[in-house]
Order: sequence, then C-alpha cells, then structure tokens
Amino acid sequence: MLSPRSKHVAVVTVSQASADQRDDVVAAEEPLEIRVCYCAADGARVDRALSITMRTPGDDHDLAAGFLLTEGVIGSRDAIVRVQHCGRDGDTVRIDLADGVAVDFARLERHVYTTSSCGVCGKTSLASVRTSSRFALDFACPLLHPAAIHAMPGALRSAQSVFDTTGGLHAAAIFDEGGTLLRVREDVGRHNAVDKVIGSFLLEGSLALSQYVLFVSGRASFELVQKAAMAGIPALAAVGAPSSLAVELAEECGMTLLGFVRNGRFNVYAGAQRLVLSGSARAVGAAHG
Amino acid sequence: MLSPRSKHVAVVTVSQASADQRDDVVAAEEPLEIRVCYCAADGARVDRALSITMRTPGDDHDLAAGFLLTEGVIGSRDAIVRVQHCGRDGDTVRIDLADGVAVDFARLERHVYTTSSCGVCGKTSLASVRTSSRFALDFACPLLHPAAIHAMPGALRSAQSVFDTTGGLHAAAIFDEGGTLLRVREDVGRHNAVDKVIGSFLLEGSLALSQYVLFVSGRASFELVQKAAMAGIPALAAVGAPSSLAVELAEECGMTLLGFVRNGRFNVYAGAQRLVLSGSARAVGAAHG
Repeated sequence: MLSPRSKHVAVVTVSQASADQRDDVVAAEEPLEIRVCYCAADGARVDRALSITMRTPGDDHDLAAGFLLTEGVIGSRDAIVRVQHCGRDGDTVRIDLADGVAVDFARLERHVYTTSSCGVCGKTSLASVRTSSRFALDFACPLLHPAAIHAMPGALRSAQSVFDTTGGLHAAAIFDEGGTLLRVREDVGRHNAVDKVIGSFLLEGSLALSQYVLFVSGRASFELVQKAAMAGIPALAAVGAPSSLAVELAEECGMTLLGFVRNGRFNVYAGAQRLVLSGSARAVGAAHG
Repeated sequence: MLSPRSKHVAVVTVSQASADQRDDVVAAEEPLEIRVCYCAADGARVDRALSITMRTPGDDHDLAAGFLLTEGVIGSRDAIVRVQHCGRDGDTVRIDLADGVAVDFARLERHVYTTSSCGVCGKTSLASVRTSSRFALDFACPLLHPAAIHAMPGALRSAQSVFDTTGGLHAAAIFDEGGTLLRVREDVGRHNAVDKVIGSFLLEGSLALSQYVLFVSGRASFELVQKAAMAGIPALAAVGAPSSLAVELAEECGMTLLGFVRNGRFNVYAGAQRLVLSGSARAVGAAHG
C-alpha cells in the first residue's frame, strides 16, 4: 500500500494578466521509519527504530539499505538478511541483519546525530567519517575525461521521471567513468536521493562504486561528501555550488569534488588528479590535485 | 572571532575549450552549538546544549533566538535575558532564559527530533505544531495584491549580499503586505536562513509578523511551513515547488502557500482567501480559499 511519488492538488495560477484554477502535481513527502532487527550480544533478537526521515515514497528498500551503509551500520550486502515493509501504512521498512553483525547504538546515535543535515557537528563528523569509512579511495582512479562530465547534466535531465512534473525533487545519479548514466533516484530530500541510489547498488550485491561518479542535481554539502566517502565513491559532481566544509572533507578524503557542472563548464574544487586534462590544462590540474 | 561567511578556494574551471586555475569563493559551512541556560524546577541554574547545526557564520544570535521560537521553546522576547557567544572558536551561542521560563526537555527533544529536516515524523509533527504554536493565524489578513508578490523575486535578488558570489546560499526574507522587503538573511541551510530572519525580529522585540510574508529562495518543505506557523506568519512564498505535506500543513494552519513565484507568475496552493484577485479571478480564489 505504497503512496504515490506525486500528488494532485488544486492550484490557482496567477500571472500578471490572469488567475486560473487548474490541477497541478506536487512531490509527495511522507515519513518513513527505518528499523533494524539484529542479534544482541546476549543472543536475543532486538527490533529497534534507527531513524525517521521525510522522504518521497518509492525505492524505500534502497533508501533504508543505503542509509545503513552511509551511516556506517553495515559495510556490505552480506550483512543484510531481509528487507521488508511492515506496519499498516507502508511507512516502515525493517532490515534484518545477519547473525554476527553487531550494532553499536551508542556510537550510531552519535554518528547519525553528527551527520544529519540539520544537526551536525563538523569537527566531530570530520573525525568520525575518517574512522568509520570502510573504503579507502584510490587516489588515481578513475580517470575522468571532461567530455564525460559535460554530458552528465543533459543525461540526468533526460532520465529524470518526476522532476519535470513537480519541480520539487532532488536527483542523485551514478555515472561510470565514461559518462554513461547507470542509475538515477529522486527524492524531496537530497540525502535520501543519495541513499536510494547507493542502496540500490548495495541490495544487488554490486557495491563496486569505486570507479564511479555520484552526480547530484543540487548543491554539494558536507553531508553528501560524507555519504559518498562512506560508500567508497571517489568523485562527487554537483549542478550547484559546494560549501566550504564539503571542499575541506573532499580534500581530506582524496575525493574529486566538482561544482557548477552545467552549460559545458564545471569547477574542480578537490581531487583534480583524476581529471584527464590536455596540454597546459594538465599542468594546472596536476598543480592543483 | 567569528568566521567569514564565505571562503576563498583555488579551483580549476574546465570548459569545453580550456581549463584555467583561478580563485573562487564558496559559502562557509561550520557547526554552531546552541545552548540554553535556565532555572530548573528545583531552583538550580542549568546550562545545556539544545542543538548543533551546520550554518553559515553570521547572525548567530538571530539564528539561536529564531530556533528557540520556531521550535516552541519560547514565545516572546521577554523570555530571553541575554544572548552571547561563548567557547573559544565563536562556535557556541548561549541564550539565558528569564526566571520562570520552563524548558521541558523531554517534549523539546521529541519536537526537535520530529521537526528537523532530516529526521521527521510528519504525523507526529502535524499534531505537535497544532498543539505547540502560540499564534493563531488570522484567516482574512493580510490582503495580498498579486503585483506585490510578483515583485518579490527581483527585490530579493537585489538585496542578497552573498548569493551571487558563492551560488551556495539559501535566502529567507520578510516582506510587508505591500511588497516592501523588510529584511533578508542567508545560510547554507534554508531552515537556518528562516530562523535567522525570524530571530532578528524577535530579538528586536518586534515579533509582529502576523501581517507579513515569508519569502524563501528555494523550495517550500513541510519544515518551513511549520517554522512559519510557529512564528505566527500567515503567508509563505517560495521561488521553488512545495511538497505535498507542505500543502497539507498550510491548509490545516490556514496559511497562504505560494510556489514557483518567479517570472511574473505564481501558484496558490493554500489560503487563496488572502489574495486580492480581480474579476473572474476573484471567484476562482474564493472558491479555492
């Protein structure tokens, strides 16, 4: 009984010449509770809520699995035994963890607290992402050609299924190093869109994101760099601007961070060593990276 | 020892023809801890952390005061005795509350939890905003002329001091019913920009926002409608799209919600009764509102 990803509403459109009543669609925004069921140290099965997030319904299993990965609860597909909706309204997803997967709630609560988009301590978080991430980013790979980057905004627009209708959704996409769009997910929350696309790879058992680029429709915040690092993604590209802390964390992680990727241009804020730049541009990139 | 609102970084700008190294500026994003000092039931003074948020430095006192108001901790300027930075890095603001102002942490933690942009239970929150808000919105006032609304995006762009430089900031502005921009605040987090502009009125002791319009540069989420309701603001206008839950909450609160306010057009999603529409448009608005 999943809710739709968009909802019809009655609106009055007011222009300078007229006011007309018509039907419109808006992006659906509804709460999802993410629960985990795991085996505690004393052998008892524990069923506990991890997070409640406002999300656009759809891809809920991917969202829950991606959240567990990017918050450091699990590191691989093997840790997950089952993912299922529960509750009457389809507003709860429960993930059963394999025996032997330990969940340290004290550490997790601190981590979720310090990495959420609205309640973050950058200093604690900068420290915690370094200690939590299970993936070391390859300093040299992948090698990215600018032409592949330039093509990403157009490819994303073509692939987006809901954005053009409601104008209210963020998108997150995984591209390979050649610029081919592999998958896209959308959500009212940009962190949810990122968790969804990462979680979809995780649930397939194919969390080999170390050669790929995460491309997002909005701005690049500290939180998105952190989520990419937790999933082992070596490059984050954004249509919008990065924040100062996003740049700092990308530099510390060895991640390539691109901003303002649109209209045949982009800016390299960190990790220029992965870009294949020709002639004098190469020297610039080498000096910067 | 406040940090700057933007930071210089070295970037490589890659176009289809060239790659050039240059200096650029990005929006600063740094943690701020908000603390309250209050008198407990047993008479002891308590000093306690309420929230840690990632924000753009600047207007920190406004941000902390606005947060306390929009999260329901206080309802008026009288509740605040003093606002001051503390800590060595200027990354903590402490608000001393007046004797007799009771802080219910159990309720507050639930409320902050349920209204944060990344950890929200809509159903709980829809209930809690109704019980928490100290302001009833006047169903009929203010009366808004479309011409005043059409002029808001241009006025905001003219007033924004950092946005054009970094491209990374959200803006929140208060306009009067005639379309005059009274004040604007910016932040990497849109909820912070809203708290800053509301808090600035609160600290002046002039929390008479019941005739004004809150205008935001991005999308209208559930959380922003909730914050406006907590401050007694009867109309929220956004350059971007609203979410479904934002529309629902605005309707429940009797708030006017406008989306896609740009290029001489806007959509009315809720509360059309406050709009002065002429001729046949008026009939449409009355039927909708």
